[in-house]
Amino acid sequence: MGTRLGALVERLGGQLVGDPNLEVSGIAPLTDAGVSHISFLSNSKLRAQAVRSQAAALIVAAADDDFIAAGYSGARIVTPNPYVYFARAAQYFAALDEIVPAAGVHASAVVAAGARVHASAHIGARVVVEEGAVIGADAVIDAGCYIGRDAVIGAATHFFANVTFHARCQIGARGIVHSGAVIGTDGFGFANEGGVYIKIPQTGRVMIGDDVDIGANTTIDRGALADTIIEDGVKLDNQIQIGHNCHIGAHTAMAGCVGVAGSARIGKYCTFGGAAMVLGHLTIADRVHISSGSMVSRSILEPGQYTGFYPLAKNADWEKTAAIVRNLDTMRDKIRALEKTIKTLTHQDHKSEEPS
Amino acid sequence: MGTRLGALVERLGGQLVGDPNLEVSGIAPLTDAGVSHISFLSNSKLRAQAVRSQAAALIVAAADDDFIAAGYSGARIVTPNPYVYFARAAQYFAALDEIVPAAGVHASAVVAAGARVHASAHIGARVVVEEGAVIGADAVIDAGCYIGRDAVIGAATHFFANVTFHARCQIGARGIVHSGAVIGTDGFGFANEGGVYIKIPQTGRVMIGDDVDIGANTTIDRGALADTIIEDGVKLDNQIQIGHNCHIGAHTAMAGCVGVAGSARIGKYCTFGGAAMVLGHLTIADRVHISSGSMVSRSILEPGQYTGFYPLAKNADWEKTAAIVRNLDTMRDKIRALEKTIKTLTHQDHKSEEPS
Amino acid sequence: MGTRLGALVERLGGQLVGDPNLEVSGIAPLTDAGVSHISFLSNSKLRAQAVRSQAAALIVAAADDDFIAAGYSGARIVTPNPYVYFARAAQYFAALDEIVPAAGVHASAVVAAGARVHASAHIGARVVVEEGAVIGADAVIDAGCYIGRDAVIGAATHFFANVTFHARCQIGARGIVHSGAVIGTDGFGFANEGGVYIKIPQTGRVMIGDDVDIGANTTIDRGALADTIIEDGVKLDNQIQIGHNCHIGAHTAMAGCVGVAGSARIGKYCTFGGAAMVLGHLTIADRVHISSGSMVSRSILEPGQYTGFYPLAKNADWEKTAAIVRNLDTMRDKIRALEKTIKTLTHQDHKSEEPS
Repeated sequence: MGTRLGALVERLGGQLVGDPNLEVSGIAPLTDAGVSHISFLSNSKLRAQAVRSQAAALIVAAADDDFIAAGYSGARIVTPNPYVYFARAAQYFAALDEIVPAAGVHASAVVAAGARVHASAHIGARVVVEEGAVIGADAVIDAGCYIGRDAVIGAATHFFANVTFHARCQIGARGIVHSGAVIGTDGFGFANEGGVYIKIPQTGRVMIGDDVDIGANTTIDRGALADTIIEDGVKLDNQIQIGHNCHIGAHTAMAGCVGVAGSARIGKYCTFGGAAMVLGHLTIADRVHISSGSMVSRSILEPGQYTGFYPLAKNADWEKTAAIVRNLDTMRDKIRALEKTIKTLTHQDHKSEEPS
Repeated sequence: MGTRLGALVERLGGQLVGDPNLEVSGIAPLTDAGVSHISFLSNSKLRAQAVRSQAAALIVAAADDDFIAAGYSGARIVTPNPYVYFARAAQYFAALDEIVPAAGVHASAVVAAGARVHASAHIGARVVVEEGAVIGADAVIDAGCYIGRDAVIGAATHFFANVTFHARCQIGARGIVHSGAVIGTDGFGFANEGGVYIKIPQTGRVMIGDDVDIGANTTIDRGALADTIIEDGVKLDNQIQIGHNCHIGAHTAMAGCVGVAGSARIGKYCTFGGAAMVLGHLTIADRVHISSGSMVSRSILEPGQYTGFYPLAKNADWEKTAAIVRNLDTMRDKIRALEKTIKTLTHQDHKSEEPS
Repeated sequence: MGTRLGALVERLGGQLVGDPNLEVSGIAPLTDAGVSHISFLSNSKLRAQAVRSQAAALIVAAADDDFIAAGYSGARIVTPNPYVYFARAAQYFAALDEIVPAAGVHASAVVAAGARVHASAHIGARVVVEEGAVIGADAVIDAGCYIGRDAVIGAATHFFANVTFHARCQIGARGIVHSGAVIGTDGFGFANEGGVYIKIPQTGRVMIGDDVDIGANTTIDRGALADTIIEDGVKLDNQIQIGHNCHIGAHTAMAGCVGVAGSARIGKYCTFGGAAMVLGHLTIADRVHISSGSMVSRSILEPGQYTGFYPLAKNADWEKTAAIVRNLDTMRDKIRALEKTIKTLTHQDHKSEEPS
């Protein structure tokens, strides 16, 4: 299905230069866009490429518009942030093709008598909803999900197939939880008695705000006594582990395979590259950016980009440098010895220059 | 629900100083405890804070008791290890609130005719139990779990929702397996013929002892020919990967995201920090402690704490140091050259001091 | 069940020296093989051990055969690659014991009216197959799997219990997907508007070739607009994360816990050790081998072995060396200062040697 440019601009804003009745079938990057597509220029360096695009229409920033207008004959939508406009337009086109699941509970689902499922919600095949759970308006719970006792799922939140959402945990509106995610599993808490671990019951919850995305096979532990908190707008990729009692500030994003140990307190608007790791009980300020593969072993109280991974090398070179790293203290001692010797030498030189 | 102090001490031991009929509603840390709570002092440095606590009762060690008694007017339970007592008391309170699942098999479960399920076990909605599987007394198998052919689940072991436990694997008594865990998947074993991988069937099992906890989305491979062994009391956090034919000694604990490659042999009473990695075919002695984010690339035969991760820095600083790390051999060569030059210089000096 | 040596050689080839009617019950490594087993010598260093083996028959390479023949009285199968022969023989024995699941759809499965399931395929208990999905001949879909709308599963492909395979994704013939794997989850794509993330719909697919194995709890993202591609013969271990739009070349293998960020293009015949990480948008040539725990932060255009992880040490030693690493620029500056001083000194010496 496609749309008229005019309909798109009515919905998403932007200044249309061109025919509002022009039909476009979808959105594509500059290199792939065909004559029925709309495309976008989000990087001024690609201006020349944009001008040569076959796309029926281009989304451009005001700063690029004169350049584009001079060489490109298609329609233009001028907007402050073409990449954001692209995202919204892609959502618009995706919605046209979307098969909205029907409201109601699939015959094979097992919904407890005391659960409250909104009439507009979709409960897929084989879903289990335990006693006291609440599922909001327009929520979509795909096949095979498990919703624990007294859990709360907000309006228009979408669980993909096979999510596990444990007792008493809550998620707000417009969230997306991907397949295999486990929310509200026990935290890893034990007392040790003579080498033997005694489990500390994990009685807190996971409390998740609005507009939160949680990736496939990501796990979030419930709090030990207090709650684990995920604020509004947080985006978690796949295979992330969040320990008990963590607090993750609004609009922080983490790429795949990140691990956050228990009781870490992470600020707002942070980003974590893939496989970054955060030790427990640390504090990380707002607007901190951790590079992929970096181990955060101390609190970070100032915004900025932080990194810590061993640089990749040909294996033979790594073997050499790693051997030196292991003995850096020897190297340091040699330098000290050299400095001392030099000092003696220059001192002798000095003396020899003195009148004798 | 709450309890009388006297009932608590009857069950858990410790010396009660105060009124056994005092009612307490739950347990909380020093900072959070209200007037109906019991709290605990597990760190002598917090003595002053403990004295000011509002808690109705405090769990204290003998060494702290005089100090506490002098300034605190509530009841006291004196015990050798207050943190362990806290864990047991928390279990006690959690049990009061627990909704014990009813014995029996849910109507939507699919249990093979030849499976043996103990009458006291709970089999939740949508569970599948294959032929020949044995499920022990008081076991709890929550919704959506899969129990393979001839698998054995010990008494009072609890599988949370959506666990996969494959054919012929066994777990002992009082275990806990969290959602999304996969036990007994094929190990990663191939022969390579001209670049193409030929699968080696994985016909061993996973054999798990008593009192073992396995975290959410953790995976444990079955052995190739022999078995993968997890001894009693092992505690595994979420998203851990254990390769085929590993042997993990009793009471070893691993934090989230740890990976252990095949045929590693790990001792008893070890600890592994989050995201630590162990290469295959290594031996790790008893009481070895691996720091978070460390790569264990050789066997460790002596107890102790071991670490290996690149220290985090501001990205600009990391770029500088990483560039130097890549060229550490150049630095080493420069030092050698300096040493040689200095030797020549000091030798000349020496000579010049000799009578000529 | 066992087999005659003659039957084995008829199926798998190799030159049999010995009685074709000899019955063998299975295959085992040299150290474990009993008198009814067949074993194999894949490493010439173990020749002496092989000669002492109790096995009824040995698989040997031509180069080892004279040595073995001289000291070993059992039967021999001579073949170019004994380890590959072992793999195939192990498959042969495993097939003898295998319980082949019956063709047909389990009564508890939920298969959409418009899905096409081949009559020879097995659909286990509680499986959900959505509209338009196609499941090929002899495919085995174990209990609890979810097959999304219009997904395509090739002939003789086996999904273990609780796999999630999303809409429109495809996998070829003879694949194996292990429990908990999630194929075709949304990629992690957002535009950022003033700190708030706007989701970019992920409308591509995951396209998987023939003979691909995917490990337990591994996740593969669908493409954003184009597809994520996994070529023939790729082997992925457990808990691997493959980002959107990645392209993984044929016969590449990745060990557990590897992470590959979006749009990485990886060649054929590569290997990745456990927990190796690859940043997004990189190109990795054919026949590149990445060591375990290494972070690939730049494209690699030449074959070879590459490594980058901090060497493990006793914690006290690590603390020393890590402190030095943090200050390597100071060390470098000291060396420069020393070089300068030395230059001055040697220059002075030179001058003093000149006739004055």
